[in-house]
Amino acid sequence: MKTAVLLCAGNAHRMRPYYDIPKPLLKVAGREILGRTILLLKRQGIENFIFVVNPNNKDRIESFIRTLCINYRLVVNEHPEKENGYSLILAQELIEDDKFIVVMGDHIYSEDFVRKAVKGKGLIVDDLALYTDKEEATKVLCREGRVEDIGKRIERYNAYDTGFFVLSRDVFEAAQRVAQRSSKVTMSDIVKEAKLECTLVSGEFWTDVDTPEDLERARKSLVRASVKGVGDGFVSRHFNRKISLWLSEKLVDKITPYQATFLVFLVGILSAFIASFNPALGGLLYQLSSILDGIDGEIARASLRTSKFGGWLDSVLDRYVDFFFLSALALYLKPSVSFLPWVLFALFGTLMVSYTTERFRGAYCEDAYEVLKPLRYLLGKRDERIFLIMIFCLLGWIKALFVVLALVTNLRVALTILLVWKEKGRE
Amino acid sequence: MKTAVLLCAGNAHRMRPYYDIPKPLLKVAGREILGRTILLLKRQGIENFIFVVNPNNKDRIESFIRTLCINYRLVVNEHPEKENGYSLILAQELIEDDKFIVVMGDHIYSEDFVRKAVKGKGLIVDDLALYTDKEEATKVLCREGRVEDIGKRIERYNAYDTGFFVLSRDVFEAAQRVAQRSSKVTMSDIVKEAKLECTLVSGEFWTDVDTPEDLERARKSLVRASVKGVGDGFVSRHFNRKISLWLSEKLVDKITPYQATFLVFLVGILSAFIASFNPALGGLLYQLSSILDGIDGEIARASLRTSKFGGWLDSVLDRYVDFFFLSALALYLKPSVSFLPWVLFALFGTLMVSYTTERFRGAYCEDAYEVLKPLRYLLGKRDERIFLIMIFCLLGWIKALFVVLALVTNLRVALTILLVWKEKGRE
Repeated sequence: MKTAVLLCAGNAHRMRPYYDIPKPLLKVAGREILGRTILLLKRQGIENFIFVVNPNNKDRIESFIRTLCINYRLVVNEHPEKENGYSLILAQELIEDDKFIVVMGDHIYSEDFVRKAVKGKGLIVDDLALYTDKEEATKVLCREGRVEDIGKRIERYNAYDTGFFVLSRDVFEAAQRVAQRSSKVTMSDIVKEAKLECTLVSGEFWTDVDTPEDLERARKSLVRASVKGVGDGFVSRHFNRKISLWLSEKLVDKITPYQATFLVFLVGILSAFIASFNPALGGLLYQLSSILDGIDGEIARASLRTSKFGGWLDSVLDRYVDFFFLSALALYLKPSVSFLPWVLFALFGTLMVSYTTERFRGAYCEDAYEVLKPLRYLLGKRDERIFLIMIFCLLGWIKALFVVLALVTNLRVALTILLVWKEKGRE
Repeated sequence: MKTAVLLCAGNAHRMRPYYDIPKPLLKVAGREILGRTILLLKRQGIENFIFVVNPNNKDRIESFIRTLCINYRLVVNEHPEKENGYSLILAQELIEDDKFIVVMGDHIYSEDFVRKAVKGKGLIVDDLALYTDKEEATKVLCREGRVEDIGKRIERYNAYDTGFFVLSRDVFEAAQRVAQRSSKVTMSDIVKEAKLECTLVSGEFWTDVDTPEDLERARKSLVRASVKGVGDGFVSRHFNRKISLWLSEKLVDKITPYQATFLVFLVGILSAFIASFNPALGGLLYQLSSILDGIDGEIARASLRTSKFGGWLDSVLDRYVDFFFLSALALYLKPSVSFLPWVLFALFGTLMVSYTTERFRGAYCEDAYEVLKPLRYLLGKRDERIFLIMIFCLLGWIKALFVVLALVTNLRVALTILLVWKEKGRE
């Protein structure tokens, strides 16, 4: 299956008062709705895209599509009032494959939804509809794998229409039958006439967008779904993430992941500079940088902009910030030679916590936190260390901090070695 | 192709005076000849093994095979004087597949040879025979992809018989014809009678073993072929490797890779301990540990015992040795607070050289030295750092050492960041 038809000929009456741009081109979580759908379909192997537009939005949609470097054809629906089923009929002669996908151009989907949906057949339905306005959604009654009834106001239903279809060419026979008896042809009419199969994709993120509130809700949901989390420590799970997610929601449409990475890096370096003469203030700023550290990843995942290079750079810059902060504290402390080993051990252990897990991924191409589950619960991850450092800095216990840090981190590294040996040593 | 026949019924007259054990069970580069061949065949997907043995070596070979957890059948050739072709005939009824492999049980092959050979057809020949005694080897004349002549004393030939065959069942018709007219049946007789196809696998390591000298030469070749090398710096290529390879040849049949890893770790820790009061002596010992550091990998690769865990552990222990050595030097130096940053930077940079390349492998599952070629020529790899440290320690320039080390390593890390960005930043 290599072809998708995107229906973008709707007139978006309810959005008109708020936005001047066509609904499929509205941005949510750092990407245009249409751009997100196209990217997700490409990742599932779709190569040819057919867009059905209306005379009013044709130019703007086409100039957007041209920036995407995809193989596409455009059909203009001169009568958008004849509804989206009529749009599909217009696309018929451009479809070369026997099986193809049809998607609403103004619906927003998560990657997990699309991955499951493309494997389905007929109309993709969802029984939970956790993220959309259920009132406004089209309801579906599925019986024995086929659609028995569909409509906004039907009384008996067990699922919702997600606006995502996996069709074969015989659907056009049903479409023509509907067209012969009615001037308006909705997708629902075609589904009902064809008694289409239905496939359940339950509980994944998708939503129709009719109002600015829908858009706002979608942005929040996409950002909240972006937490990766297996490497998160206690402090991150219960404190940092709550703030960083709130910030990411505000920032996701305004800055790129790289900008976030550099911003966080600068805050970190600044915290180290301040710590060299005022550990308490420096420690607070360091903890702030730790909170902000989640933002680049959250924005990247929510806007489908994750990159391996971004992850690599983020890790390397984190090591620099940690090094500068501990060095600044060491200079503030002016350690005697007899205390120097604690400083060096703290610095070494801090780096080795990352080194051992990263080197693990390098060796096995697997995430250490996935394979070595106890590592998740073991104290000493970056968010926990930084929180600890802040507390000790606020209390002015700099000497004790180095001792505790040296012990916690090196113990964690020793246990990591043990865990890796237990898990992989006999292979 | 899932079946291999290993011909082990030879009487090994020339080895008798030197060894009391059957030739296929002689150890070379940490493994029994037969064990090596079986492992290499398993790695190419062979699941069923048929061994043809003689009454004298049957018990010892079978008790060895039982330790390997493989699916095997044993055939006893009561008349080994009837030669190896007769052995093959005896195996006929145990072979269930239409295509199968036949290998001499006393030949030694490298992994590259076996990987190429199993893809061939008929007799596998080699035109170079770089590693075997050409005088004693069986010569082959190949014409238009088929064997035209074969024998130890033929005059016109263009390749050598490697003792490795990829055969189909029709070979037994030719074998029976030979058996009807002669009491002795060699593999060469069968090859000639069948006018077998021949496949050229050129220049890879393989050798027949007839004398103790052959065995010694094979051990050296296997160890020398074990250098991985892409991560080797200047000092390693031109100095360390020459010594470590010489040592590995002596040690490969005596110690395991893990024993080597721990031995090297102990020498490194000892060097750090000594450096805390005698940098010159410590530096020399540190350089010795750097030389020895190649041995575990060389032994592991030569004896087909490489493991990801071994590589991981070796890397982690290297970081500990580097940390302890620099810390010891710092304690010897008793740095003032104003000089402390140099010490910390040197320590940080040393760790980050590894961290950045290992984190790269973690992100991309590719070796940084393969992808970022300039990294190979850039100064600052571990062997180069340690050599530099030794020189400065011998000269007593400890303060200067920290400055130089801080600059060299951190510059290397900065350039690594630049190179990764250039290579991967736009993906």
